[in-house]
This record gives sequence, structure tokens and C-alpha cells, in this order.
Amino acid sequence: MIQTPYLLFLGDAPDPLAAKVAQGIKDWRPDFALGQFRMEGCRADMKLPDMTLAEAKAAGAKTLVIGVANRGGVISAAWKKVLIAALEEGFDLASGLHNLLRDEPDLKAVAEATGRTLHDVRVPSVQYPIANGEKRRGKRCLAVGTDCSVGKMYTALCMEREMVARGMKASFRATGQTGILITGDGVPLDAVIADFMAGSVEWLTPDNDPDHWDLIEGQGSLFHVSYSGVTMALIHGGQPDALILSHEPTRTHMRGLPGYGLPSLEVLRDTALALARVANPKCQVVGISVNTAALDDEAALACCAEIEARMGLATVDPFRHGAGRLVDALGAV
Amino acid sequence: MIQTPYLLFLGDAPDPLAAKVAQGIKDWRPDFALGQFRMEGCRADMKLPDMTLAEAKAAGAKTLVIGVANRGGVISAAWKKVLIAALEEGFDLASGLHNLLRDEPDLKAVAEATGRTLHDVRVPSVQYPIANGEKRRGKRCLAVGTDCSVGKMYTALCMEREMVARGMKASFRATGQTGILITGDGVPLDAVIADFMAGSVEWLTPDNDPDHWDLIEGQGSLFHVSYSGVTMALIHGGQPDALILSHEPTRTHMRGLPGYGLPSLEVLRDTALALARVANPKCQVVGISVNTAALDDEAALACCAEIEARMGLATVDPFRHGAGRLVDALGAV
Repeated sequence: MIQTPYLLFLGDAPDPLAAKVAQGIKDWRPDFALGQFRMEGCRADMKLPDMTLAEAKAAGAKTLVIGVANRGGVISAAWKKVLIAALEEGFDLASGLHNLLRDEPDLKAVAEATGRTLHDVRVPSVQYPIANGEKRRGKRCLAVGTDCSVGKMYTALCMEREMVARGMKASFRATGQTGILITGDGVPLDAVIADFMAGSVEWLTPDNDPDHWDLIEGQGSLFHVSYSGVTMALIHGGQPDALILSHEPTRTHMRGLPGYGLPSLEVLRDTALALARVANPKCQVVGISVNTAALDDEAALACCAEIEARMGLATVDPFRHGAGRLVDALGAV
Repeated sequence: MIQTPYLLFLGDAPDPLAAKVAQGIKDWRPDFALGQFRMEGCRADMKLPDMTLAEAKAAGAKTLVIGVANRGGVISAAWKKVLIAALEEGFDLASGLHNLLRDEPDLKAVAEATGRTLHDVRVPSVQYPIANGEKRRGKRCLAVGTDCSVGKMYTALCMEREMVARGMKASFRATGQTGILITGDGVPLDAVIADFMAGSVEWLTPDNDPDHWDLIEGQGSLFHVSYSGVTMALIHGGQPDALILSHEPTRTHMRGLPGYGLPSLEVLRDTALALARVANPKCQVVGISVNTAALDDEAALACCAEIEARMGLATVDPFRHGAGRLVDALGAV
């Protein structure tokens, strides 16, 4: 568990896109985002107060979160200077970078000397159990995609926000690096050892109140041959009561697999539902989320309307149109 | 790659079942099984020449393979004495035990001093790629089960033996600890990091002659919620041309999951085939292997005949009745 609130480190981000982790935290957990730390030349701006380390510390920040991708896969000397100063100032560090904080001898030494924690969220920090398949109390919703990167995380986050606003009991459950940094907790599922994948998802979504919903962050796709095993483990470990189908309508082939076409929403529905019912016979497909970022307003609405008419399920872009109808659909479960 | 031939270490096996890895090597790779090393009180016997370390070395043995399960999960002092003497005699060591050879400081030190290799086959030794889904030359056959531990490995080994006897090009591809120790090579799939599972199976079954068959060792079951992700990765990483359905007819619930019934062979066929065709549209289900170990001769034949009539697919217990009809069925692919 990463201590909150955060000071968001934007470093020398060459453009706003490089800081998408920081953007996600600011969008989805504004209470965690106390301020931002920018270096010279930084081209990203979260519209948060710019703070020195000392100012952020005085304001109560506990962790410096690296909210920006590094260039060339190395932690530069300029970054290192800030990170070491932050440890000395009393901050923990959290990062989803490929090159781990703990693999930097100087960061490791200073963290040990100062008693601070380095959170490398790409690496599991828990010894997960093997899944036991036992029915857990509470309800769970999982988004499954026709492909990878079609908006499954945003769907879950939009639904959680809507449910909390309605006074419902709901928890987003992060299963990827960005989700973990946004929420401060979760399972880096793609880095879990094969035998423990489903168990890690059970661990992440334990017994809960009967009217509590876990909104589980989806990963991969049953139809993406590189990652389908991860998706399968989410479906069986998560025991979802409700599935949301997620789709990006302009994708021409599976991400990174030029020879592979996307499945239809009908095929995704039938495949995912049959597999989900192995773990939870009462599972239902309740709605469809469409990532319409590539479409203009009119085309986005037309696309959702066409899919809704065809599939007979509430269909929205939850980020663009709100997640209300998807949350309504959970009521039928 | 583990150097062959082997001296099989049976230790102080309390009964023959404890030495099932040694039995597997002797049954399936008799050329690798030069001799056995038994300690006082050993109750297992592979009917191989009993050899001292020096005798085995002189006969050409390269690796001492731990062919027996250890009691209480620890490597005893009595075993340790033999293992250290073996390293000093010039043997590599190979083990599928849960407690790793490399985690024993004395074994590690002696191995380093003598330049020998410790093979812990539970731990991947390769940095596997992420699967790219590209079509590979050659053909592949995979057994998928209604449950775990229904005879998928034996099915593949029986088919490989029959194919080699017929002069066909065939390679058993091990994906589990026992299979790796039997053949000296493979991928310990249940220990691979989630993102690399399918890639490790692609790596294991590379481009080959058009008339060459890989017989891929199956793992888990699509219907076993603890391990279904591993099975999914095998189906998509393996790109099978042919599936064999594997079944144990007396099983009353999924192994280790009392609340879960087994799927029918029809449901397994339809589910596995649809998923396999994502990676290989030409995939076919060609036959059924039944583990009839719990049935007498008459019941075994009746069981296979009933399934064959129902499913319209060649159905045998390949270990009991021979794998000929399953190999014949590959001809249709």
C-alpha cells in the first residue's frame, strides 16, 4: 500500500502524453494529488500547485510518485538528484518504470539509510495464494475487451466514480501499473507467476458486504494471443457477477498482431460469458463500453446507438457520455 | 538443457510412488537411464543397475537426477552428503523439488568450486519473449483436459513413442517439471511470468519441418479456475493444428475444487476448439484419450467405446491400449 497523498513528479516530460500516469492520478484521485514537481524544460502541467519538496512535505505529502515516462529507459542523473533529495526529505518513492528503483544502488542505499520505501509497482510485493475458487460475498464487475487497450481501466474508473457519487459501495481494483499508481494499491497481474494469477485476483477482491461492488480492472483480451492467459485468470479469479464488453470501433487488427482481426462483440459476449459461468454460474453481460476517442460527437453517438440496437445492451462511452447507464445495468444483477 | 545420460537418485524413497519422476524417465527415456543410486532403506527399484557415483561416472553418466520426492520439503543431511559427493565426482545435479538446490548454500558453494551446474527445473532459466502470434512451420498437437491430472502428459509421450516407432518426425515438448526431467529440456510453464506465458510456448515449439509434429505437454484445464490461464496460454502460444481431449471418467469434481463439477467432453471440445482457432483457424479436434487406470479391462474398453460412439472421435487409453489410433487421426489434419 502506497502512502497518500502524493507529490506528482513530472520531471522533464517532453510533452503532456509522457505524463499520463500523473494525469490519471489527477483525474481519478484528485484528493491524492497535492501538488506537482516539475524540472526545467518540463512540458506537462497538471494545473496543480508547483511545490518544492519541502513545501510538499509541510503540506502533508507522503510519497513522490513518478508520473512520467523516462526517456531511453534509464533514470537520468538529473532525476536521480531529485529522487535522492526526496528520500532524504522523508518521502517514499513510487514508480511503474521498467527499470526498477530498487535496481539503482544509490537510491537503494539512501532509502535504507533513511528508512524510506521504494515502491516498484511492476513487481509483485505479495506471495499470492493459488486460487481456491470458493464463492466470495459481495459483487464483482469486470470489463472484457475485443482487444487490449480499448478502455477497460477507464470504464471501471468511470463506473466507480458514478457509484460513489450515488452513495453505492464500490471499489476500483487495480491490476496494472497505471491503475496501481492511481489508486495506491493493487496487483501487477502481468508480472505475477503463472500458477498464482487467479489466486492474486481472488486476493485482490476478497469477501465484502453483499451490496459492495468491486470494479476489477481488465487486462488483455481472450482473443489476444499474447495475453489471453492473463484475461482468463481475471475471469476465473475475479468470479464476476457482471461483465461489461469493451470495444474500440476503429481498430483494424489486434494491437501488435497485424495478422489477427478483432472478434465481433457477439463472439466476445458468448465466449467470455460461458467461461465466466464456470466460476460464477449467475454471471451476466450487462452492458457495453465503447472507446470513441477517435470519433467526433455525432459519430460517437451513432456508433453507440448502432451497437445498442444490435446487441440489446446499454452501450455508452463512459468517459465521454458518463457511466450512469452501465451502473443502472448493474441493478439487474 | 540437462546433460544426459543420467544416474537416477532414488534416495531413501519410502515407497515406489515417491520415485515417480525416476519411473517416468525409465519408462519414457530408457536411453537416458544408465543406472540408479539407492540409499539404505530405499523401497523403490527401477530395475536398473545399482551404481556407485564412481561406477556411474565411469559408465558415462553426466547428471544425477533427483528422481524422488523429499519428505517434509527439506533436503536431508543424508541426501546432502550424496549430492555433494556427486558434484565433487563431476556430476551436474537436476531437481524438480520445491526447495531449490540453489537455495542450499553448501550445494551452491560446491557447485561453484567444481564448475558443475545445478538445474532447478521449477525455475525458468530463459528470458522468454512476448508471444507474436506469427504462424510457424511444422505441426503441433496439444492435449486439453476436462480437469487437471487426467493423463495429458502421458498422452503426448505415448503418441511421440508411436510416431517415432513409425519413423515420423515427432518431438515431445515438456511444459512441466516431470516432463522436463524426463526429457532434459522444456519450459516450466507454471513458473513463468504471466506476460511471457504464451511467448514461452512459442519459444518451445519453433519453426520446424512441414511434416514434423510437436506433441506439447498440456497443463491445467480451461475449466479449472486455479490454472485456466496457463491452459489458455498453451492453446494460443502453441497454435495447435490438432487437439486431443483428455478425460478421467471416475473423477467426481475438479481436482482440489470440491464445489466444481467437470465439463462434458462436448463442452470441452466446443470451448477449446473455438479458442484454438483464434490462433490457428485450421485447428481440429482429432481424438480422445481416456485415463482408465481406475477401471478393469472390460470397463476400460466399454468406457472408450461409449465415448467414441457418442463423440465420433477415435477414443483410447493410449497408455493401456496404445496410441496408434490417435496417431492415425493426426493424418486427417
